[in-house]
Amino acid sequence: MVETGARSRITKAAFAPKGAPTATSKTVQAEDIDTGPVKLAGDPTAPTVDVEKLGRQLLGTWADVRLAAREVTAKPEMQRIEGLSMAEHRERVLGQLKLLVANGQVHRAFPKGLGGLDDHGGNIAAFEELVTADPSLQIKSGVQWGLFGAAVLHLGTEYHHQTFLPGIMSLAVPGAFAMTETGHGSDVASIGTTATYDPARKQFVINTPFRGAWKDYLGNAALHGTAAVVFAKLITNGVNHGVHAFYVPIRNARGGFVRGVGGEDDGLKGGLNGIDNGRLHFTNVRIPRENLLNRYGDVDADGTYTSPIASPGRRFFTMLGTLVQGRVSLDGAATAASALALKIAITYGSQRRQFTAASDIDEEVILDYQRHQRRLLPRLATTYAQTFAHDEFLVKFDAVFGGKADTDDDRQDLETLAAALKPLSTWHALDTLQEAREACGGAGFLAENRLVGLRQDLDVYATFEGDNNVLLQLVAKRLLTDYSQKFATADAGALARYVVTQAADRAYHGTGLRTLAQTVADFGSTARSVSELRDPRTQRELLTDRVETMIAGVAAKLRDARKLPKRTAADLFNSQQNELIEAARAHAELLQWEAFTRGLDESTDAGTHQVLTWLRDLFGLGLVEKNLAWYLVNGRLSAQRAQAVTAYIDRLIARLRPHALDLVDAFGYRQEHLRAPIASGTELDRQNEAREYYRALRASGTAPVDEKALTGAKK
Amino acid sequence: MVETGARSRITKAAFAPKGAPTATSKTVQAEDIDTGPVKLAGDPTAPTVDVEKLGRQLLGTWADVRLAAREVTAKPEMQRIEGLSMAEHRERVLGQLKLLVANGQVHRAFPKGLGGLDDHGGNIAAFEELVTADPSLQIKSGVQWGLFGAAVLHLGTEYHHQTFLPGIMSLAVPGAFAMTETGHGSDVASIGTTATYDPARKQFVINTPFRGAWKDYLGNAALHGTAAVVFAKLITNGVNHGVHAFYVPIRNARGGFVRGVGGEDDGLKGGLNGIDNGRLHFTNVRIPRENLLNRYGDVDADGTYTSPIASPGRRFFTMLGTLVQGRVSLDGAATAASALALKIAITYGSQRRQFTAASDIDEEVILDYQRHQRRLLPRLATTYAQTFAHDEFLVKFDAVFGGKADTDDDRQDLETLAAALKPLSTWHALDTLQEAREACGGAGFLAENRLVGLRQDLDVYATFEGDNNVLLQLVAKRLLTDYSQKFATADAGALARYVVTQAADRAYHGTGLRTLAQTVADFGSTARSVSELRDPRTQRELLTDRVETMIAGVAAKLRDARKLPKRTAADLFNSQQNELIEAARAHAELLQWEAFTRGLDESTDAGTHQVLTWLRDLFGLGLVEKNLAWYLVNGRLSAQRAQAVTAYIDRLIARLRPHALDLVDAFGYRQEHLRAPIASGTELDRQNEAREYYRALRASGTAPVDEKALTGAKK
Repeated sequence: MVETGARSRITKAAFAPKGAPTATSKTVQAEDIDTGPVKLAGDPTAPTVDVEKLGRQLLGTWADVRLAAREVTAKPEMQRIEGLSMAEHRERVLGQLKLLVANGQVHRAFPKGLGGLDDHGGNIAAFEELVTADPSLQIKSGVQWGLFGAAVLHLGTEYHHQTFLPGIMSLAVPGAFAMTETGHGSDVASIGTTATYDPARKQFVINTPFRGAWKDYLGNAALHGTAAVVFAKLITNGVNHGVHAFYVPIRNARGGFVRGVGGEDDGLKGGLNGIDNGRLHFTNVRIPRENLLNRYGDVDADGTYTSPIASPGRRFFTMLGTLVQGRVSLDGAATAASALALKIAITYGSQRRQFTAASDIDEEVILDYQRHQRRLLPRLATTYAQTFAHDEFLVKFDAVFGGKADTDDDRQDLETLAAALKPLSTWHALDTLQEAREACGGAGFLAENRLVGLRQDLDVYATFEGDNNVLLQLVAKRLLTDYSQKFATADAGALARYVVTQAADRAYHGTGLRTLAQTVADFGSTARSVSELRDPRTQRELLTDRVETMIAGVAAKLRDARKLPKRTAADLFNSQQNELIEAARAHAELLQWEAFTRGLDESTDAGTHQVLTWLRDLFGLGLVEKNLAWYLVNGRLSAQRAQAVTAYIDRLIARLRPHALDLVDAFGYRQEHLRAPIASGTELDRQNEAREYYRALRASGTAPVDEKALTGAKK
Repeated sequence: MVETGARSRITKAAFAPKGAPTATSKTVQAEDIDTGPVKLAGDPTAPTVDVEKLGRQLLGTWADVRLAAREVTAKPEMQRIEGLSMAEHRERVLGQLKLLVANGQVHRAFPKGLGGLDDHGGNIAAFEELVTADPSLQIKSGVQWGLFGAAVLHLGTEYHHQTFLPGIMSLAVPGAFAMTETGHGSDVASIGTTATYDPARKQFVINTPFRGAWKDYLGNAALHGTAAVVFAKLITNGVNHGVHAFYVPIRNARGGFVRGVGGEDDGLKGGLNGIDNGRLHFTNVRIPRENLLNRYGDVDADGTYTSPIASPGRRFFTMLGTLVQGRVSLDGAATAASALALKIAITYGSQRRQFTAASDIDEEVILDYQRHQRRLLPRLATTYAQTFAHDEFLVKFDAVFGGKADTDDDRQDLETLAAALKPLSTWHALDTLQEAREACGGAGFLAENRLVGLRQDLDVYATFEGDNNVLLQLVAKRLLTDYSQKFATADAGALARYVVTQAADRAYHGTGLRTLAQTVADFGSTARSVSELRDPRTQRELLTDRVETMIAGVAAKLRDARKLPKRTAADLFNSQQNELIEAARAHAELLQWEAFTRGLDESTDAGTHQVLTWLRDLFGLGLVEKNLAWYLVNGRLSAQRAQAVTAYIDRLIARLRPHALDLVDAFGYRQEHLRAPIASGTELDRQNEAREYYRALRASGTAPVDEKALTGAKK
């Protein structure tokens, strides 16, 4: 039986004797191993969560910045008012941006020389907290300072910083980030807008050649923007140098378009209606040569093009890469919205009662129903994983943009991380907001309880700043490249082992017997299986192995693609697209799991550590359960062990139930942030009032007799 | 090796020689069996869909009624205008209700004696089509005639029909259906409102005893309603006879509340803002004795209670059962909305291009990407399954309410069917609308393209008219009951066989080997596996077996529950809740699969039959793939065969791709119903314009040279 490579490692880890428990979890480890009944919260030996300490940990690296930002979002004037018309909402959000400026809250990322703080991580941390006040405020701020301003900062040079940034920072010049066109969103390299250099007048001439090349979906374009950073193909001396960014005034002081510029309002959207998204088009719009944001490509007076980056492809991706912060902040904001949703739904679920099960008098608290727990607690585990992963992501971002670790590799890693995490967290937010809304029933559908509004606003997070599916495909391509490089540099032995593994895999797939039987044979009892599954090394190996195996499988199928005709190669790649995107998702989930596990290691309170361990296990085993068929088909789990996964998840959920409120309280959002009447305690008041009414009625002796009781007595 | 019962049957079917192809599909069967490359649409031997014929089939039993209703929904005055304020939208929808009355479109379900048609199925068919005009119109109509009116019709008697129905039918009396309370939605039996009979004045006195007993989320309650059917506990002579319905005037001619009635506006909601939902409460509100809707329970002048149904429990469920039509119509409306969403997204996906893959010039049509197909085509298959299932559901509903088949069993079957289908179709609509929205990118987020608005409106379909999870639990309880009755009446042999099977199962679960190995051994090739999977008997057995096995498993675990203390029994049941709900879902999916298969059998055009067969297989095998781990763990599929499932799904999707447009066109919605600019052909115009621009530019010889081409040439 030949067995090397990925599966060999997983098998080793799975069969290795369980490691010693870590020091921090030792005191409660015993409880975790037993297979007896789950202990109740009232049990004095049950672990307790140190909510304050955990809360501090969840705030992450920029805890103080976040706390200060939450004071801002706690102010009514910064918050969304439900039911405003689109026009009123737009004006209100513009006013809120002015308040942010007035209170000095938007300059953190800008250079110290211009009154900023050169604090990139802190800037994002503060900015993403705005989502709890109003996602429109978060995104419109993002358009102004995170896209329009950041493009001038990162793609421009000293002249642009001195000339344009002060107006941008002060909001004297609201601006649009004019990259996307009606015809091209994901494929920015193919936009149609042109900027042709005219050496006679030392100007660029901006043109929109056809309807599909109209700039579209641009915040600030419909109403408030007076300038825009316009992405266009730079053409000089008859050569198209690809996409570059240009600073272009678009409106005059009276609010009308300048000559040659036209546009439309995108009108009502599914959400984010506090932002004036619109379209722009350009007809022979002339701008000075100096308005080219020339950090990565310049044109001199006579029209000669120069660039510090020789490769047009690398230059393009370097330029786009400077704008990664949008994805970073969406990951954080989506995670914050998920936390808010769970705080609301779990608070309500802990107070709301419906149906009697074990008593004629007391109705059950709905979070005590297994299904309700299954709906909310795994999503809570994912939100925790994302919280830890996001903080690490932000630290990485800060290191790159603050210059502490800013190599090409660092930037590529950051972009891959962004492309991996943003899709998962934005989809998770939509899923969690929806489940929370349904878990609150009709009350969840009322705008006053926030869940529907947040979901409507966050909907577009899944497709803007990079369509989630396209981003995951980017991740997959990076994984494929890494994989082929690994073998390009590997010695012959590594390659041989790989080939042998592949052959073994093929043999296995042909008979479906040997490996599976071997795996099955070694598990004697459910308790043993559960012990193995609880071991983080097992979880890590299961998750890692799946990513590696999926990528290896696709790589093997695509190995000869380069030798094929272009159409055939494209079809071959396309036939693997779904698998590749699923592999990228698995990779991103592994990153989240790793971050959760590191966060767990930093938790020093024994009770908190125990509860977080259950939560991390729920996250990890939840991922395994979701892909259980893969593990079974590929012989990584026996049927018996697969059943242990689900059984242990049921157990973890029951264990976590008593800690659910603590875990959402630790997110640290106050009533001013929640602003959801159903999470304010009114439901508990109503339940108490009703129960007291019935208690008094029973005590009074005047209660009507139940017909059921009468007929029951007769029979 | 002992093997009987469910698994035995599935195994037999799976291993049986393939049946002869049906006559209708014979001509194209050969193509389906080969394992070579998928044939292109241009292939003269490829099947074609007869769109008109298929469209007629999809319209179902009440085709003409639907077509007439679609003429109504095609009228601008019946349609939603995006961006109206809540107040304007409410007024507009009220006006549309009046138009429905004026055009004689709302009386179909009412008695002939009062100007109706006694046409229950046709009434629902017409009514659910309103969703494409504006879901608020559909639901507000539903409140007025389907709930308020239907309660008077079905719970009242001749006096009520004569007295109240004319005003209800003409909309002279807009009314609320006051069942749900803030504190009780799913558990109607526990509402707090009381109606106490006062024999001295021959009146009922309606009271709201505490805040949780306020009626809540009631359409027509905030503004327009002047009466309500109020559900309250009927108390007379000191006995509480449980929930009954009362006709209660709530507003005077000037629009103010009558004495003793109070209320609140529910305000802005996540959607359906054309409906004035609100709260009502009652303080000593007196109504004549005759206002009790007394079909199932009456109180005579001196306060004596009588009922044709002795059991209070059965009486309650009979009363609620008469109101099943809400669930029927939500199933149809949700399916219509899914069809609309797919028509929009698949049309756009067939015109939109992004990224070049195989050409330097032509970008790919996005529906040609495998991932895009994987996102949309399985949802199309489910929508077809639901369309066929809904028509059968409607026929059943019509038979019960029209009196053709109206036994207790029929009613119970109908209610179980409603509780099974409504959750799946309403969740599917939300999922499909969201995927369609994301598949259309930024354009999908614009209100003008309808997807976001429809999703917002349909959100609450998942929890009103029965919370989806609660409904599925009802289904599961019915399945459990049927299961135990089967064994209650079975002979000793059947029970013994069952026990033996259980024992065999337990043995299997203990070792995980024998059954699995046996299953694995019999499959030699992928082609063989695929042939088996294509056999509808295999699909049926796989789906049926899963439901039966899951229910049997839970039944075995709950067998001794009755002997346990109440709390322990409740906890035991709760520990199986998630599994039960999943079993109910599997049951509902099986029902949809069966309906799709019957629909397929009625398709007489060979090409259409072939394409529908692929689509049904995609639906059926998609269900198997979703639960692949279950089939593997329980030894129903070998690892190899499980891989064949996914491989064959990929293949089916590629085969269906050329027919995708035909399949959405067959839904029969015209531009007046879609009203989505992105599905109107404008995207195709834009693509053509852009391509023509570049073609002309290339032909002109004045096109700028690509820097990439230059640097590539230099190297």
